[in-house]
Amino acid sequence: NRNTVESLDYEVIENYAYREEQAQRGKLYVGYYVAVKWFLALLTGIGTGLAAVFINISVENFAGWKFALTFSIIQRSYFAGFVIYVLINLILVFSSVYIVTHFAPAAAGSGIPEIKGYLNGLDIHGILLFRTLIGKIFGSIGSVGGGLALGKEGPLVHTGACIASLLGQGGSSKYHLSLRWLQVFKSDRDRRDLVTCGCAAGVAAAFRAPVGGVLFALEEVTSWWRSQLMWRVFFTSAIVAVVVRTAMGWCKSGKCGHFGSGGFIIWDTSDGQEDYSFEELLPMAVIGVIGGLLGALFNQLTFHITYWRRNYLHKKGNRVKIIEACLISVITSAISFGLPLLRKCNPCPESDHDSGIECPRPPGMYGNYVNFYCGKDKEYNDLATIFFNTQDDAIRNLFSAKTIHEFSAQSLLTFLVMFYTLAVVTFGTAVPAGQFVPGIMIGSTYGRLVGMFVVNFYKKLNVEEGTYALLGAASFLGGSMRMTVSLCVIMVEITNNLKLLPLIMLVLLISKAVGDAFNEGFL
Amino acid sequence: NRNTVESLDYEVIENYAYREEQAQRGKLYVGYYVAVKWFLALLTGIGTGLAAVFINISVENFAGWKFALTFSIIQRSYFAGFVIYVLINLILVFSSVYIVTHFAPAAAGSGIPEIKGYLNGLDIHGILLFRTLIGKIFGSIGSVGGGLALGKEGPLVHTGACIASLLGQGGSSKYHLSLRWLQVFKSDRDRRDLVTCGCAAGVAAAFRAPVGGVLFALEEVTSWWRSQLMWRVFFTSAIVAVVVRTAMGWCKSGKCGHFGSGGFIIWDTSDGQEDYSFEELLPMAVIGVIGGLLGALFNQLTFHITYWRRNYLHKKGNRVKIIEACLISVITSAISFGLPLLRKCNPCPESDHDSGIECPRPPGMYGNYVNFYCGKDKEYNDLATIFFNTQDDAIRNLFSAKTIHEFSAQSLLTFLVMFYTLAVVTFGTAVPAGQFVPGIMIGSTYGRLVGMFVVNFYKKLNVEEGTYALLGAASFLGGSMRMTVSLCVIMVEITNNLKLLPLIMLVLLISKAVGDAFNEGFL
Ligand SMILES: Nc1ncnc2c1ncn2[C@@H]1O[C@H](COP(=O)(O)OP(=O)(O)OP(=O)(O)O)[C@@H](O)[C@H]1O
Ligand SMILES: Nc1ncnc2c1ncn2[C@@H]1O[C@H](COP(=O)(O)OP(=O)(O)OP(=O)(O)O)[C@@H](O)[C@H]1O
Ligand SMILES: [Mg+2]
Ligand SMILES: [Mg+2]
Repeated sequence: NRNTVESLDYEVIENYAYREEQAQRGKLYVGYYVAVKWFLALLTGIGTGLAAVFINISVENFAGWKFALTFSIIQRSYFAGFVIYVLINLILVFSSVYIVTHFAPAAAGSGIPEIKGYLNGLDIHGILLFRTLIGKIFGSIGSVGGGLALGKEGPLVHTGACIASLLGQGGSSKYHLSLRWLQVFKSDRDRRDLVTCGCAAGVAAAFRAPVGGVLFALEEVTSWWRSQLMWRVFFTSAIVAVVVRTAMGWCKSGKCGHFGSGGFIIWDTSDGQEDYSFEELLPMAVIGVIGGLLGALFNQLTFHITYWRRNYLHKKGNRVKIIEACLISVITSAISFGLPLLRKCNPCPESDHDSGIECPRPPGMYGNYVNFYCGKDKEYNDLATIFFNTQDDAIRNLFSAKTIHEFSAQSLLTFLVMFYTLAVVTFGTAVPAGQFVPGIMIGSTYGRLVGMFVVNFYKKLNVEEGTYALLGAASFLGGSMRMTVSLCVIMVEITNNLKLLPLIMLVLLISKAVGDAFNEGFL
Repeated sequence: NRNTVESLDYEVIENYAYREEQAQRGKLYVGYYVAVKWFLALLTGIGTGLAAVFINISVENFAGWKFALTFSIIQRSYFAGFVIYVLINLILVFSSVYIVTHFAPAAAGSGIPEIKGYLNGLDIHGILLFRTLIGKIFGSIGSVGGGLALGKEGPLVHTGACIASLLGQGGSSKYHLSLRWLQVFKSDRDRRDLVTCGCAAGVAAAFRAPVGGVLFALEEVTSWWRSQLMWRVFFTSAIVAVVVRTAMGWCKSGKCGHFGSGGFIIWDTSDGQEDYSFEELLPMAVIGVIGGLLGALFNQLTFHITYWRRNYLHKKGNRVKIIEACLISVITSAISFGLPLLRKCNPCPESDHDSGIECPRPPGMYGNYVNFYCGKDKEYNDLATIFFNTQDDAIRNLFSAKTIHEFSAQSLLTFLVMFYTLAVVTFGTAVPAGQFVPGIMIGSTYGRLVGMFVVNFYKKLNVEEGTYALLGAASFLGGSMRMTVSLCVIMVEITNNLKLLPLIMLVLLISKAVGDAFNEGFL
């Protein structure tokens, strides 16, 4: 296990030899070179888009199948359902951690810090290998499908970077997949530019946010930036958007199993709150402060735990890593199944035909008002609605409009505490793991809590709890990751709602300022 | 008339003296320094927001009053109406060009190239003076209110930069407005950072596009960029959004005269086309190509005319500049009044109560289907709808959905040729002049033309001509200015429509690529 860190050379030295070489090459060669650059950007976009579609389809199908099976079994026995649920999660998580530990150690974690390092000149061993790509893709399917408190978005950025890097090398020589005619990239700089495109493609694919992807690459990952590169990054993102849209269109006809309405996080809130009044700015500022505090705390806790893991626990070898991940999986399953059981069911609200939201939701569907361990027919379990669900669907429920009073404050608080703890503990295990979606989960929970108070306190009809959940999500991400412009654009793109942009900006400004008072942001 | 070009020094030299000085200053001083920085950013945001509101209210009131008067007079005599219309425009344009030539010569043009120069180290004389600010504000009210083929958005960027620069100096010493306690900025770099904030604020205010403003500052105007600055620019933009929104809310109750539904360009197309099919990509690509060609041609023509003006015409003194502007004003008025007169009126379409669009539009209102020189009551003049109107309203009509077949191809072509010529000729006169809105006008005209063909050819119901107009606008701006990401975000923000983002990206990619084949972009 080598652990060397090389450094990359991004400065083009314009010495005599370089200029000589440039002059010798004909115009034709330069044209070919530029064409290959753009062609590789195109391929990076297509590849990352397809990888994202593949991951999403797999995760949605594993998770959908898991929940369908569990729900059908608990009609007869809750205990059997529990066992099955725990087992499926365990198997998925085990396969993920096994792949990572035995096959692609560099695939653990989100990969964004490593890529950031790479783009700034730090060549960490193995982060852009073919096996890392494979490990990342299958590992994140296992860890996300297995219901751990982590996301698949960070790994997708790494995936995009791997695809770009491999394309830049003309394939992987180890697996005899190399293409000679693509090997025109001579310098580290060309490879880096392509990896930047890959990062942007990863974000664009993960959130279906093409502009967000460009800005992410611009703001977060690279400090080497030229207008010409921006342009190619923009192109790559646009390609991703087209590829993903095509795949989604193809899946609409039901060819992709459980993948359809869910999956591919777009939490459309465009039919939510139309306007806001000035009195609402105070609770929104409060959300910003909470986000800053909880985000900074999150960074602090994960920093210490990661330190401990790296220097103590993970030094003991792969077996410990596997046991750790499996243990966390069982605990996560037990909590997400067990806690809703302890919760009393609520009666369904008067059905409102305008909103089109059924209560309880029909079996085998996604949506609000989950009937779980309820006595009567017209009841739902609010904790199960967010906890016993995929994270994407839980967030959709938390963001949803026209569902005022769906959640009780007690359930939201319980969920917040439990999920926050799980997210802290899970971060750093040897599986591919992103921080975005768990962050959105945490944030939208306390956001919705604040929203409930606002609804009760201001007694106005045009306030939606979902809006506050969305702002909460922005505030937590702002408070832990400290991104600004790119996060703002990503939030707008994933919620398909421009009206809330000034509010998101406000909340991000506050949460970042509060967070910065405590520690450095991390991603 | 001095014409010196100084250069600015943005490199902080960390020599012994500098470090000595830094060390001597107490922590308190540094805190005060940072606080002043943020406070000045806040003031820049507020100032630019208010300036934008003031300009918009003035322009809308002048233009609204002008059109109301003309429409009431043409009930009796078209000739008297024509004379009044020409005279009002002439007076407005004359006051604009008089202010600029006799009081603030640096206020001519859009000011963006000068600011770009300033931010990259080129200190052109007088561009950030107090008199330039005043000249810019009142000059652009005159030139835009006077109906010339130019916009007020470019000048607003310059206005924002002026406000920022004056604040950074602690006021203007010449007019005894200086504030000593604000004069903590010692270096050119601090002043430059604030001017960058001012630019972003200008774009944010002009288009009501806060994120677009940040990206514009980032992509276009500055090549010195730090993450910390991004953060302050973002803050300034957010402030502008809040100020503008507050002012708009205050004006809603009718306190601002004609300013209300119109003004402050937001051409909301969110109720437009929902989806697009793959066959549509071909005409959209065609729009991109047209945009690249027409944009590059525009650059070429204005380049030559500006060259001629600078080296020959404008050397003859202020009197020639004034005569030139007045002449162009009279010609513009004559064309925009006269051409619709020659056009036969069309019968109103079957009224569609769903769309809520009346035909002809009620007198004294904004909107589609202008009744101008029509015989019968239920008729409208399609050329007057775009030509005899403010540019903002014309664009709103071109972008509008549910108005298929409102315009005839003949009218659109006439308008395209005339307006393109006017825009080329007007560019470079001695008045404050932006290129955005004229560009959008030109682009949306040919875009709508292509849209008409698509509607006829594909015979599908879900195609809206307004969508193509919007893409046309993006393509022309892409083809002439060659901005990418910021333009994309600005287009999305001003049309309040995220659904078209991938299409806008596609069109921009093509138009920029085509344009780049001919000449350099310019702004
Ligand atoms: N086709 C290529 N063109 C230009 N440079 C290449 C090419 N392939 C590899 N390189 C350079 O050679 C270096 C070593 O490549 P290597 O095969 O080690 O890949 P790697 O992804 O860096 O893996 P490792 O982690 O083992 O170092 C890389 O840093 C890269 O800059
Ligand atoms: N308060 C200040 N703090 C720091 N630098 C200042 C301040 N005021 C002026 N300067 C610097 O002094 C230079 C000269 O300022 P001046 O009064 O000429 O303003 P200006 O806007 O550049 O006008 P002109 O066009 O006449 O040069 C400016 O370039 C600026 O960098
Ligand atoms: Mg290497
Ligand atoms: Mg000067």
